[in-house]
Amino acid sequence: MGYTIQQAIIPSELDYVQADVRIEGDRITAIAPRLDPQGTVINGNNHLLLPGFVNAHTHSSEMWQRGMIPPRPLELWLAELYDFTPLNPEQLYLSALGTAVETLLSGGTTVVDHLVIIPGLEEESVDAVIRAYREVGIRAFVGPLLQDEATTAALPSGGDPRTHIPYLRSTAETLELLATLVDRYHRPDAGIHIMTAPTGMQLCSDALFEGCVELSDRHSLCRHTHLLESKAQVLLAQEKYGYSAVKHLQKLGFLGTRTSLAHCVWLEDADIEILRETGSTVVHNPLSNLRLGSGIAPVLKFRQAGVNIAFGCDGAASNDSQDLLEAIKIGSILHNTNDFEYRNWISPREAVQMASLGGATGLGLADQVGTLTVGKKADLVLYDLTRLSLLPRTDPIGLLVLGRPVNVVQHAWVDGRQVVQDGRVTRIDVEALSQELFAQSQWQSQRRSPGAIEMEIAYRRVMKLA
Amino acid sequence: MGYTIQQAIIPSELDYVQADVRIEGDRITAIAPRLDPQGTVINGNNHLLLPGFVNAHTHSSEMWQRGMIPPRPLELWLAELYDFTPLNPEQLYLSALGTAVETLLSGGTTVVDHLVIIPGLEEESVDAVIRAYREVGIRAFVGPLLQDEATTAALPSGGDPRTHIPYLRSTAETLELLATLVDRYHRPDAGIHIMTAPTGMQLCSDALFEGCVELSDRHSLCRHTHLLESKAQVLLAQEKYGYSAVKHLQKLGFLGTRTSLAHCVWLEDADIEILRETGSTVVHNPLSNLRLGSGIAPVLKFRQAGVNIAFGCDGAASNDSQDLLEAIKIGSILHNTNDFEYRNWISPREAVQMASLGGATGLGLADQVGTLTVGKKADLVLYDLTRLSLLPRTDPIGLLVLGRPVNVVQHAWVDGRQVVQDGRVTRIDVEALSQELFAQSQWQSQRRSPGAIEMEIAYRRVMKLA
Repeated sequence: MGYTIQQAIIPSELDYVQADVRIEGDRITAIAPRLDPQGTVINGNNHLLLPGFVNAHTHSSEMWQRGMIPPRPLELWLAELYDFTPLNPEQLYLSALGTAVETLLSGGTTVVDHLVIIPGLEEESVDAVIRAYREVGIRAFVGPLLQDEATTAALPSGGDPRTHIPYLRSTAETLELLATLVDRYHRPDAGIHIMTAPTGMQLCSDALFEGCVELSDRHSLCRHTHLLESKAQVLLAQEKYGYSAVKHLQKLGFLGTRTSLAHCVWLEDADIEILRETGSTVVHNPLSNLRLGSGIAPVLKFRQAGVNIAFGCDGAASNDSQDLLEAIKIGSILHNTNDFEYRNWISPREAVQMASLGGATGLGLADQVGTLTVGKKADLVLYDLTRLSLLPRTDPIGLLVLGRPVNVVQHAWVDGRQVVQDGRVTRIDVEALSQELFAQSQWQSQRRSPGAIEMEIAYRRVMKLA
Repeated sequence: MGYTIQQAIIPSELDYVQADVRIEGDRITAIAPRLDPQGTVINGNNHLLLPGFVNAHTHSSEMWQRGMIPPRPLELWLAELYDFTPLNPEQLYLSALGTAVETLLSGGTTVVDHLVIIPGLEEESVDAVIRAYREVGIRAFVGPLLQDEATTAALPSGGDPRTHIPYLRSTAETLELLATLVDRYHRPDAGIHIMTAPTGMQLCSDALFEGCVELSDRHSLCRHTHLLESKAQVLLAQEKYGYSAVKHLQKLGFLGTRTSLAHCVWLEDADIEILRETGSTVVHNPLSNLRLGSGIAPVLKFRQAGVNIAFGCDGAASNDSQDLLEAIKIGSILHNTNDFEYRNWISPREAVQMASLGGATGLGLADQVGTLTVGKKADLVLYDLTRLSLLPRTDPIGLLVLGRPVNVVQHAWVDGRQVVQDGRVTRIDVEALSQELFAQSQWQSQRRSPGAIEMEIAYRRVMKLA
């Protein structure tokens, strides 16, 4: 059984070579100029073979609201998002399928779902998305969004004392819930990982972070959180800790080589040094950061400091897609305007490495996936270089990253199993999924979000907008 | 004959309505809740109908080098581009076909081609691309790139006196060439316009600008040029004029309501006021500006000043695609990080208007195309809202602009003629085009550009890079 991909174009140190690649079981077992064909033979001629990318930060359920919320800053956008969040696990199942399909068809073989869990249906929520990811066959890290402070506490007070309604679940109950989810669903060998993923310092107590550290150490889990996405969060950190949120996370023991931090837009040089020192990974979500006006993360500084970086789409309501190639392109070129020294700019090959090995590193999987290496797991994507959007023939990786590839993922494998064949996701019926998404939604141009209206008053005051 | 599009979703003031739309000849002749079906009946159910967009600035021949040039600033990138520019009209024909196809399949019905003409084959160059645009059936404005100063003169001297080899063609000969091209090819009634399009102040004498103004006044032609794209050009304008390049173009009479100006990245407030006063149009090319590190054009300031704005893809070697929806998305959200007052941000509906009516206005066609209006020319695009990338159903325009639509253009018409049917460009064989582009190119990962090597030394000195 297995596969022999014949004469694919693969990147060498500075150039490309043609090679045969063998997949046996879940592994790449040989790469050579010519191999005896074994198993299913795949014609790799005129195709580029790359390691699969990691969609290193998303929230799958946001798919239900993509395109709906007008361009607004994070805090207002979130208030509207909360007002219309899906309330049944079947919806979560469908949006996880959609997220997986779009990730696969844009070169991703791993998804990190920072998952909105439905209150009272927490296990059912996790169960639904894991079912979806297993069905599609994508490698998945699911980190239930945890908080133990009131949602209103995420906005700085601006000096006015406020009271907040206690959060619906205590810290202890939340940690207990997480422990249960780990026992029930954490199956790394099957490509399904549970992460400890407190929402962020804006909604979580120190005790919650510490409990997550303890649990992740006990079970070798990855840690994941939002970090300094918006300017309001910088102000909040100042009110809450009196110093940098990055420093605080370090004190709590949350940072480390299995920790990935979404956004990191508002970091100071000293913060960047902490990330380097702790071996933490930044997940850059360029489209979301632009769409919400959060700011532009200092990605070239991260690179120069030696901080590992991965790319994420972020949830589809702040992007509003799950196309990794788009995130990689914009996440690469966005920083060129911030440094006149063009020798610091991110090359397409570096971008591919960030998206694959960078993503794997942040998940503690650098020895398992992320490169075309014999012995590693076969998470692979074969791109059709004869599609119009990848023509004429120039530099395959250059055009894949800097162009706007359409319909280019020909085949993909996760853990040695083929999950895309001839441009189609093989293991689920995507047409049926589309019909279901259509049936369960309604076009609308405007909707009233009481949460956003209320938040806007507070936000404008705190952010000193007239 | 003609078409009746039945029950399409079209935007109303703040919402959407379903309507029938009739096309007769080259015009929209009726829009109503229900019309008697006449001509070919098109099912518009579950489809969004919008006016076609304008790809308001591109260089079609750059398609041959897309993906090839590493991320580098404009001046170095240009030097490499020049070293490998296509040298036969057949290549220009093919890249114009490719540019037209990608523009149509991303919602564009008009293309502005700031065309690289082959020395010694100037007429053949223009002939080739116009043939391509006629074949595909897209509305086209072709502005041969004109210069009368040495290419090396585009870089500021930085105080060191330099001598330049005189340009191969005199100002008078260049203007004569342009007059010939106008006589031969300017056919507005057939949807083919010649523009007067000096490359930019960095390569053109005052006499060339003035000659272009004279010719454009005589024949009612549009005017088009690059303007203050890079920081080096700001320094050059200072050396060349001692004051703003915008002010200088105004003095030369080049600005006006039929003038569109590509980039406008480095404008001061006084410059913006001149654009407003003269009724000139800015063409925003966000992807190119990021890719080349040129900077971020002050688009929100333009809007607040009341300056008309259109979107362009720019040439495919600086983008590296011709996907208008991508340019519209990034050109909208890119500016959110530049203004904390989110009420100034560009909404998806505003972005659509910039891309359609804004584009038309810059070409003096606001009374002809750019809106869904009875009596206007039928340049229309029908988007399939049942495609996965436009699901679930939320706000159709919101998701079209903020998402990453793939394979969504179902039908398109230019001048009342159907040019896209069922997702396929109808009037040429796109598969054959792809094969030709494949056959006439070679993969390569690195190439030596003597021009870029030489330019780099001068560039680093002038821009004070260590």
